[in-house]
Amino acid sequence: MNLNKVIFLMGVSGCGKSTIGELLSEELRIPFFDGDDYHPQANIKKMSDGIPLNDEDRYDWLVTLNKLAKNQLQNNSCVIVCSALKESYRKILSRDIPNQVKWVHLEGSFDQIFERLNSRENHFMSSDLLQSQFDTLEQPKNALVVNIGLKPQEIVEKITKKIKMKSEFGLFGLGVMGKSLSRNLAQKGFTISLFNRELKGTEENVAIDFKSAHKELESAKAFSDIEAFVNSLQTPRRIMLMVNAGNITDMVIEDLIPYLSDGDVLIDGGNSNYLKTKERYDYLKAKNIHFIGVGVSGGEEGALKGPSIMPGGNKEIYNLVKPYLDSIAAKDRNNLPCCTYIGEEGSGHFVKMVHNGIEYVEMQLLAEVYTMLKHLGNNPDEIADILESFTCKANSYLLGITVDILRKKDGDDWLVNKIVDKAGNKGTGNWTTIATAQLGAPSTLIASALFARYTSFYKEERLEASNNFRSNPSAINLNIEDVLNAYQFARIVNHYQGLKLISEAGKAYNWQLNLSEIARIWTNGCIIKSDLIMDLIPVLKEDDNILTSKTIIDQVKSLKPSINKVVSECILNELAIPCLSESVNFFNGYTAAYSAANLIQAQRDYFGAHTYQRTDDASGKFHHTNW
Amino acid sequence: MNLNKVIFLMGVSGCGKSTIGELLSEELRIPFFDGDDYHPQANIKKMSDGIPLNDEDRYDWLVTLNKLAKNQLQNNSCVIVCSALKESYRKILSRDIPNQVKWVHLEGSFDQIFERLNSRENHFMSSDLLQSQFDTLEQPKNALVVNIGLKPQEIVEKITKKIKMKSEFGLFGLGVMGKSLSRNLAQKGFTISLFNRELKGTEENVAIDFKSAHKELESAKAFSDIEAFVNSLQTPRRIMLMVNAGNITDMVIEDLIPYLSDGDVLIDGGNSNYLKTKERYDYLKAKNIHFIGVGVSGGEEGALKGPSIMPGGNKEIYNLVKPYLDSIAAKDRNNLPCCTYIGEEGSGHFVKMVHNGIEYVEMQLLAEVYTMLKHLGNNPDEIADILESFTCKANSYLLGITVDILRKKDGDDWLVNKIVDKAGNKGTGNWTTIATAQLGAPSTLIASALFARYTSFYKEERLEASNNFRSNPSAINLNIEDVLNAYQFARIVNHYQGLKLISEAGKAYNWQLNLSEIARIWTNGCIIKSDLIMDLIPVLKEDDNILTSKTIIDQVKSLKPSINKVVSECILNELAIPCLSESVNFFNGYTAAYSAANLIQAQRDYFGAHTYQRTDDASGKFHHTNW
Repeated sequence: MNLNKVIFLMGVSGCGKSTIGELLSEELRIPFFDGDDYHPQANIKKMSDGIPLNDEDRYDWLVTLNKLAKNQLQNNSCVIVCSALKESYRKILSRDIPNQVKWVHLEGSFDQIFERLNSRENHFMSSDLLQSQFDTLEQPKNALVVNIGLKPQEIVEKITKKIKMKSEFGLFGLGVMGKSLSRNLAQKGFTISLFNRELKGTEENVAIDFKSAHKELESAKAFSDIEAFVNSLQTPRRIMLMVNAGNITDMVIEDLIPYLSDGDVLIDGGNSNYLKTKERYDYLKAKNIHFIGVGVSGGEEGALKGPSIMPGGNKEIYNLVKPYLDSIAAKDRNNLPCCTYIGEEGSGHFVKMVHNGIEYVEMQLLAEVYTMLKHLGNNPDEIADILESFTCKANSYLLGITVDILRKKDGDDWLVNKIVDKAGNKGTGNWTTIATAQLGAPSTLIASALFARYTSFYKEERLEASNNFRSNPSAINLNIEDVLNAYQFARIVNHYQGLKLISEAGKAYNWQLNLSEIARIWTNGCIIKSDLIMDLIPVLKEDDNILTSKTIIDQVKSLKPSINKVVSECILNELAIPCLSESVNFFNGYTAAYSAANLIQAQRDYFGAHTYQRTDDASGKFHHTNW
Repeated sequence: MNLNKVIFLMGVSGCGKSTIGELLSEELRIPFFDGDDYHPQANIKKMSDGIPLNDEDRYDWLVTLNKLAKNQLQNNSCVIVCSALKESYRKILSRDIPNQVKWVHLEGSFDQIFERLNSRENHFMSSDLLQSQFDTLEQPKNALVVNIGLKPQEIVEKITKKIKMKSEFGLFGLGVMGKSLSRNLAQKGFTISLFNRELKGTEENVAIDFKSAHKELESAKAFSDIEAFVNSLQTPRRIMLMVNAGNITDMVIEDLIPYLSDGDVLIDGGNSNYLKTKERYDYLKAKNIHFIGVGVSGGEEGALKGPSIMPGGNKEIYNLVKPYLDSIAAKDRNNLPCCTYIGEEGSGHFVKMVHNGIEYVEMQLLAEVYTMLKHLGNNPDEIADILESFTCKANSYLLGITVDILRKKDGDDWLVNKIVDKAGNKGTGNWTTIATAQLGAPSTLIASALFARYTSFYKEERLEASNNFRSNPSAINLNIEDVLNAYQFARIVNHYQGLKLISEAGKAYNWQLNLSEIARIWTNGCIIKSDLIMDLIPVLKEDDNILTSKTIIDQVKSLKPSINKVVSECILNELAIPCLSESVNFFNGYTAAYSAANLIQAQRDYFGAHTYQRTDDASGKFHHTNW
């Protein structure tokens, strides 16, 4: 679905089409083409000889102009000037693109035009032909008719007022991500309106300055006034919010509501909490405003070049914004957009949240590998080289950037050595951990990665504790191949857990989720893109639980001895590897036919009369013992 | 503060005091004493000889009655009959207990009483003395005056209506905990009202049946009607809710509100979420109803014999219920109640929540020790013996009951072997994990213990995974001393983390918490009582962070080599020991002067422009690199 438009300015020779066309193109900031420039030589000769063209003469020319229009529409709207007197000509001109063509008829009387033609010099058509043109003219239906007696500027104003090229898409909030998405949309040829609030001293002229800084934003409209911004959009309006998740999102929604109309669509592209998205969806529904919660991953660069996009909400409403999201999304290896309808309500934001949770773990695992390799005595360049060698088996975007990071120098030292070891977080890891606790689906690695960041934050306590508890570090005995295998093992457990959490949420909230599709849109554009995700697409077609796949089972079994060795060696040598360690502990618990939970059930029954089930009572009845 | 009352029935001889006193005692279900029974022999002789007693005669007798009253008040209210004609006599009778004495004066005319006395047989006082009694009588102030012309039953009704012995304390909800607390309160001599709803088929006559099943509830009042229950209580009313936490609590509050008066106090003794407690506190405050959120630990038995009690709310209002809570609480080794004011709002429930979180870990650690000892080839009796030997170093209530549990036989087998290995949970572990995520204070062991329960729940998946991934178990090499040390190490980390979480919450919510006091009230009555908690009382007087204490540092250092060995050996042998493992991983992270979070900060800045701080920029400024 292409949303560009071609405006055909039509009418008899001398009605002023070229002049108006050029002015219109300037006004609307879209390209201008004069149809006459595309006549074959033979036609030009005929006309300058005063011989009227017949339909056969015109056929190839009209086909050429239709092709020109179609080509232009790929990327942008445009203005094409062409007399287009007969219905049959107009049919050829609008072939394949009837819905994207706007007809504007510049109309004048014979006398008006005759006088005008006679005042021209060097025109290649004699005014004698004018009558034949009037004879040929078939009044078009569905055209905007404008009288040529008006001043050119007035004509242009009349046209732009009528077929006002309102923007197709609005972008609210021009932070790092908002800016990148705006440029991405504009580069795809969409007409967009941009809004950023005006805040004295901190946010001044953001939208205007941003627009003028980028060529692709030439035809974008920039606003700092909400009402003007909303009014600049075609209805139903499509407005993407790129503001800080949380209360700000609610405030922005309240600011917008007074100017919205029934059926408008708000798209929340921030990292909003999925439960909040559900609330907002219901709140706006009552006001006849649609709401789509969209997870966007890819960071600044991904947002510009093509992010991975995870939209959730009503399917029909989603279709109203699908073309935009598909266009700006990254493309997978089959050139399909890394954007797919996830499910109802907050499902898009839920999936994005878990994506970020998986990302936390991928980052933490790399940090743990770094810890080990550093402890083995490697400098950052050497660690980078080792990590680069990991790409054979465990390639990923995050692995790649970690190699870049480790090689970055700052003066004589490596930059990474100068960064304070306190990790921040923006909430999604926190929420995933909470969701894990609430849904009873143990994404334990995400919790471990989050807690590792928290622990890193207690820097002063850590320094004191290090003094109190640590002696000299011991020599560690690790084989790089084992480290790679341990890393890959933990990554598989991480992906199992994250996908399991999504699957359990799908059941709990009755979303109809397609996990293979979710993996597919994670293969490009997003932070966790990796060869592993690629491998999971077919696996997830079989089962939501990747640990039931023969391929994965074989891989995991071959990796397991390595992680056993690596984790136990690190523990003996007091290295902090919470995620690697948890991956093997979780796995050992998960693969234990018999857990020790029978003892816990006995304890609970002993002190709290919480009852228990018996192995020899298949009814599942709950028993209580007077211990 | 003693809340019992003594009712002195006074008036001249022959006014009917004894008759009325007996009826009143029956009605109010409190003991009855006839003052005349306590006359010394000399007085009796004098009276039967028709000689009026003088004040000297009466002095010892009045002192005896005052002693009797004081003794009775220790445990209960009572009715004492005594003429008490002069203000000076009444002063002696109410010595030390003026606020607990109620005077009821049975008043009649000389003729009425004269006639009545003459109709009696075998009375040791001649009716001639009557006039001297009337002469002696000084009208009491503050007495309830009742005319003896009424029928005895009417007189009793009049008295009970006026000094209605309304119950001091109401117990709403007679589940396992509600019943135990009720009996505990009654055993302490409090007058209580009991309520349980009437639910056809499932909950019928619960309160009535419960009352008649226990002797100590003889004078308790039982209700299934809310209005009657509320009206049976002295104002300001003290009503303790012992209902299921969650929506039920809100519904019960709504049911009660219409019958409550300004200043009444609701006490929520359920395991309510602390954020909900804060909400309810505010909600009820607007209605002039006070709300105290009380954590109660001890299970069924603890609630009956003395639980650990953690009340939060307004301090002044807490003082209205303190005597009751102190009385029923367990006693610490200095005989102080295991009940202390925690702080404002939801602080009581927060502390109870973390108590339960610590309990989750204590249970999980025992389950992990059980896993290891079982894997070493021990049967439950042998494991019990080993655990019993742990009491030397790691004694706790949970350790003790685990020994009992393991020894319990069921036919030829041990009962523990017949219990299904899927652990349930009631929410507090979940909430603690969420609080940890939200407050940024990593109680990682609680999360691990919770997740271990969740994992245990995936029984079918575990069986399949066991088939797919497990081969024959290997022989494990563990020394029992190391297992004990590892267990104790993890317990210390667990207590560090739980107390840290409480401390961080205290800062975040501006509660003024006394962690040493919290440890003290955990030394008895509650599920996590242990020698370790006892040891922490002095430690916490120095610092909220127990890992800064010299004693603890020394202990931890001596235990650390053992946990390193145990955890690494278990991982090599694929045993699931998530909590033990996390304890050492957390500790290794916590004691690391330099974490790997610098790399994570670099990654975040690389893909998301999240910025980072530099080690060589003490200003704390945030930097961004174009990687």
